[in-house]
Parts: sequence; structure tokens; C-alpha cells
Amino acid sequence: MDLSKRITGLTGDGDDGWGIFIKARRMKAAGKPVLELTIGEHDDRTEQIILDKMHASASGGHTGYAMVPGTDALRETVAKRIEERTGVPTSIDNILITPGGQSALFAAHSAVCDPGDAAMYIDPYYATYPGTIRGVGAVPVPVQTRSSLDFQPQVDDLEAGLTPQVNSLMINSPNNPTGVVYSRETLENITGFAKKHDLWLISDEVYDTQIWEGEHISPRALPDMKDRTLVIGSMSKSHAMTGSRCGWICAPEGVIANLITLATHTTYGVAGFIQDAAKFALEQGVDFEEKVAAPFRRRREIAKRLMKGQNAVKLIPAGGAMYLMLDIRATGLSGEDFAEGLLDQELIAVMPGESFGAASSGHIRVAMTIPDDQFEDAFARLLKYAAEK
Amino acid sequence: MDLSKRITGLTGDGDDGWGIFIKARRMKAAGKPVLELTIGEHDDRTEQIILDKMHASASGGHTGYAMVPGTDALRETVAKRIEERTGVPTSIDNILITPGGQSALFAAHSAVCDPGDAAMYIDPYYATYPGTIRGVGAVPVPVQTRSSLDFQPQVDDLEAGLTPQVNSLMINSPNNPTGVVYSRETLENITGFAKKHDLWLISDEVYDTQIWEGEHISPRALPDMKDRTLVIGSMSKSHAMTGSRCGWICAPEGVIANLITLATHTTYGVAGFIQDAAKFALEQGVDFEEKVAAPFRRRREIAKRLMKGQNAVKLIPAGGAMYLMLDIRATGLSGEDFAEGLLDQELIAVMPGESFGAASSGHIRVAMTIPDDQFEDAFARLLKYAAEK
Repeated sequence: MDLSKRITGLTGDGDDGWGIFIKARRMKAAGKPVLELTIGEHDDRTEQIILDKMHASASGGHTGYAMVPGTDALRETVAKRIEERTGVPTSIDNILITPGGQSALFAAHSAVCDPGDAAMYIDPYYATYPGTIRGVGAVPVPVQTRSSLDFQPQVDDLEAGLTPQVNSLMINSPNNPTGVVYSRETLENITGFAKKHDLWLISDEVYDTQIWEGEHISPRALPDMKDRTLVIGSMSKSHAMTGSRCGWICAPEGVIANLITLATHTTYGVAGFIQDAAKFALEQGVDFEEKVAAPFRRRREIAKRLMKGQNAVKLIPAGGAMYLMLDIRATGLSGEDFAEGLLDQELIAVMPGESFGAASSGHIRVAMTIPDDQFEDAFARLLKYAAEK
Repeated sequence: MDLSKRITGLTGDGDDGWGIFIKARRMKAAGKPVLELTIGEHDDRTEQIILDKMHASASGGHTGYAMVPGTDALRETVAKRIEERTGVPTSIDNILITPGGQSALFAAHSAVCDPGDAAMYIDPYYATYPGTIRGVGAVPVPVQTRSSLDFQPQVDDLEAGLTPQVNSLMINSPNNPTGVVYSRETLENITGFAKKHDLWLISDEVYDTQIWEGEHISPRALPDMKDRTLVIGSMSKSHAMTGSRCGWICAPEGVIANLITLATHTTYGVAGFIQDAAKFALEQGVDFEEKVAAPFRRRREIAKRLMKGQNAVKLIPAGGAMYLMLDIRATGLSGEDFAEGLLDQELIAVMPGESFGAASSGHIRVAMTIPDDQFEDAFARLLKYAAEK
């Protein structure tokens, strides 16, 4: 009578990279005025009009089991949104509503990986990626990217990671943790690689409304990709609905049909009143999404202004998401030592690059998730701390 | 580039047993006045006071990521409730909050089964059980029970199903689909079997507030069982919160610690405002739960009254849950033929016993989930239909 190897081995070496985050939370709980630039969560809460819609739906009787694939109404809204933004014909049969983006990542890998298969992902990476792959019994294969090449994946590095067991590749643009938005050239390289080796492509696009420079391109819209691409979407980042746990997978009809069966056996659907609220939120359109994204756009400008005329830290020239990735190697410190010192000395918490994989060692990730004035103060002190190293 | 064998093989032979249900829904959509006695969902909706509490929580700002294990407040409430009802010391470290009972069933099997392991469950069974086991890569092993023994599992049948690959046994009392409440003797036999062969016991207790006769005994409370038992609970049936998707697992601390890591990679927690509503609902106490259960208690009495003096159908002498299992073998029909004919002739939809496994063939399951007057009419017509066969 043992626990499964799947569950006991989920975090690999056991270090989940959240040491600094937890230390910061403990210091805060002990009364220290720590400024947290750590996790990807808005300082704004979900808009009241969305919550009122949710309450109206629930009070109106939408409290029973919703259909497992999602309500037709929300699936239709998501499908239409994707079709409008990408030009790829998309119907409700291409959409499964999931209880959040993480559920969608897990379901997508469940659909394409059997135990013993291998699944590629890009390093640096969002913290749950390798564990999600291990959770379906597959072997996680990181593909290194390089700070010097703005963390844009390169074909040579993809080819180097390939083994006969590899079945899928997961990408994420705009990227957490780097903020990098993949260029058209990068995406053409990636989709070419997927087609050449007959791989599934899992495209995590939860930051698609946070674009500060360039454009968001969904790889599903590139030639001959819609039949091998599973797109992950979510209400969390675009509509400040992190806590509502509502996301989706957009994929070929045959994949969705199977994912619906999987959902019946793993989640049994999403609350109907949350889906009604999500539909309402999506219907608010692009202006609403820009309003949710605006604070990060502003704070990025603040950071860029403060960085002028110093060279202790270097901003990765990234175009999206709510993070800044800073190369701090000029200080001679590792990301972990930098973050640890900054927390102890300045009571400012950032994430060490090492928490997101080997490729971002010597970097730190700054989440732009505190009010502008506090952010400006914290970022100025961060730069001063770096300059004094 | 194929889909995983896991996902394409989830439903085994591909027949999910929901044919009559789907036919009934189609007839209803086409305007026919079908009475549905099929699925386990209250005709009452979630109480408004619970929905108002949910809205107050969300409007008060609980819209961000909740802690992945669940809020301390809800975990504490669930732990206290279980401790009070079973006498087994239970703390928040024994509790993981999940997005519904189905998620809990999947997570529990993920925790104890690796690919190639085998997991036992009792036939007849809730429709998702075998697929849930296949979903974690394990082999489902049904253990037959017998109508003549009131579907109470027998040690000989458990022993007969055992192989070296078996790691766990799942039980469900009060039982869906039979309504049977396992006796103390049955549970002592089951727990003795689990201890003798060093198995995990997964105990699905989502109907624990629907007891019409006898008492609900949690196997976790039996001697030396708390370290090998994972209890599944949910707000769905006890508080008419099916659509809210909020459940839990109560298990040894070491199991919960691992399940939290799994949750980080599969669901990333449950909406905080739903958890606050669930805590409020649980705090309403036993009287509230009895109010939610009362309609099924009443309808069961209606059915028993109507059945007097006939012998075309025989009620399995069951003591709980929102279902009646009827032995219709005296009609000479299979459960499927009986259900099909009843739907076509009387526009009454019930589930054939065959949908829940071989052990309940020649039976039908009647969900007591329509208003009393409609239920009485439907049940009387069902008996007349049976008598005329």
C-alpha cells in the first residue's frame, strides 16, 4: 500500500522553486511591510458588473449541473472570439470549457500523452509545466532558450531535444516568465518543426490580451496547423477572473470529443453561473480587456523610464504579459542570491529566474502587480540595490 | 501523432450506458412531455441564502486565486463536521477541497494507482467509476454484488476479484444506483478485506445525508482504517449545490500533502467565493440538510405505498440516496427493454440497471427527482406498465 509514483514524483527533484515566495509570505504574515512582485495576479479584483451577472445567473436558477462540455452559449462565444481574432473557422465543437487554464493544460497533455511518451516544453517555463507532464505519466523534456536571443526558441534547440518518444510540444506566448512575444519567424519555425516531426502543439495563450509591442499570433492560424494544435485559453489574466477558475481548450473536433469524455471522468464540468459570467465578460469586448491590461502597460513604462542610464540590470526586450524579466548577471549574483538579498535588505520580493528553469538563471522575474506608486518605489530601490552590488 | 490510449480507451467498450437518457432528452427537446426519473439532481435549486453569501464573498473581494488546498476556513469546517459525525480526530491537514466530487474521485485514484495497477469497485456502480480508474491508467476490476443479497458486498466476491495488481477498493454507501446503505457487518467485512490485503479504501460518501433507514457508517471510523481510507465528500447532494462543483477528500496527512501537489498541477484550486458559500451552507447544520433530503424521503414513501399489493416489480430494500432500484425480472424483460418500452409508451424515462453494470441487469433505477404529484403519477403508471407485461 504505497502512494503512486505519479503523485510522489510530481515535482521531480522536489524543489518547486517557490522558496522566496513562501519566505516573503511568512515575513508579511509576521508584520513586515514586504512588497510582493512575485505572482501573476492583478491587484484589481474582478469587476462588479461581472460578479453581479454571476449572481443574477445563479439566482435565476443556473445552479444545477451544467453540460460537461460547457454551456452552448459560452462555447459559442469563445469560438466566435477565436475565429474573429485568428481567422480560423471555429465552432462550439472545437471548444471545451474547463475549470481554469491549469485544468486545460492537464487535460491537453492527458489527451496526447500516454505513460512513457515524452512532452517538450520551453525553458524558462511556468512553474507547473513539468509537473503537469509528469502528472499524465509522460517525461518532461525542456528545450533551452537563450537570454542573448531574447528567449525566442530556435530550431536547432528544438531538434536537439527531440527523441522518438516525443509526442507534443508546449509553447506559451506571450510568455510567463519572460514577457517575450514570439515573432512570426519564431512561430513559423516552431510550427514547421511540429509538422516535420508530426507532433501535437499545445499553445498556452492565456496572456493573449496583454500585448505591449508587436502582435499576438496564434500558431493555430498558421498553415496546416489547426488539426494538430490545442490552444489553452482562460478568463484569469484577460478579465481579472483568476479565482473563478474558468478556461478552455480549442482543438480539432475529434480531440474535443475525447476531451469531453475525459472531463466527465475528471471534473464533470464548470459551474453554470460562472460560465454565464464569463460569457458576459467576454461580450464586454476589447475595451474592457484593455482596461484590465492597462496597469501593466503603465508600470512597464515606469520601469523602462527608471532603467535609463543604468547598466546593472538589463530588461529582456519583451512585448507582453504582466512580468519583466531582468538580466542581473552584471551584478555577479545568481538570481536566487539577488532575490534573497533584495528581500532581506529592501523587503522587496521578486522571483529568481532559477525558479523557472536553467535558461533564466542569473535573471529575476518582476511581476507588475502592485499599485503604480508602490511599483515605482520598489523598482527604483531594486535598481539601487543592483547598482550597489 | 495519435491521441493517447488513455483518452481513447476511457469508456472501455464505448457504451456509456446513457442511451435512454439521451433519447429522453431528445424527445423532450422535440416537445414531448417526458417525465425524467433519470439523473441524480434535485428538482430544488441551491437555496438563495447560499447564493447571497457567495455574492457577498465575491463582491467583498474574494475573487483572486484561493489557496490550492482550499481555504483554511472551509477545510476547518469540513474537518470539524467529519470529526463530529465519525469521532475520528480530523484536522485541516486531512482535507483537500476539490472542484466537485468527480474531481475528488479522480484525484484519489491518481494518488494510489500507477499505470498497470488495478483498482476494484463494486458492481452496480456510478457510471463514471470505471472510466475514472482508466483515466489514471489503472485497470478497473468490478466486484459483483447480488440483488438477492440486497447488493451488500460479500467477502467471497471481494476475494475472487483480487489479483496481485490490485491496490485499492472503492465503495459507495449510501449507494448510487441501488440506494443500499451498507450494514456495519458489510463494512467490517470490507475493511477487514482491505486490511488483510493491505489495500487503500476509497469511500465515496456523497449521499451521507440521505439516510431513510439504518445509519451511515464511514469506514474511516472503523478500527485501524483511518490511515488507509480516502473519503470523498461533496456539497452537491447534501446541499443541492450540484452545479457549484465543490467537494473534498479526507485522507491521511501524507496523502493530502501529495494531493495538494497534484491539485497544483491539475486544477489549481476552487473559487474562493464558492468555498465561502460552501462553508456557510455547512454551518446551517443538520436541519438544513434534512430539508434538502426531505423530498426524497417523502417520494420513497409514496412509492412504497403504491407498490403494496402488486408483485410485478420488487423494491430493493434500500435505506438511502435519491434512487429506488426495482427488480423487474418478473416482467420477463431486461432493464433496457423495460426502460425503452416505458419511455416509448408512457413517456417516462428511467435508467436501465444494465447502465450501471452486469450486477443490476433486469433492474431499473428510478431517480426520485420530480415534484411529488408528478412522481406519484409517473410511478403509478410505471407499475401499471409492469403489471401489463
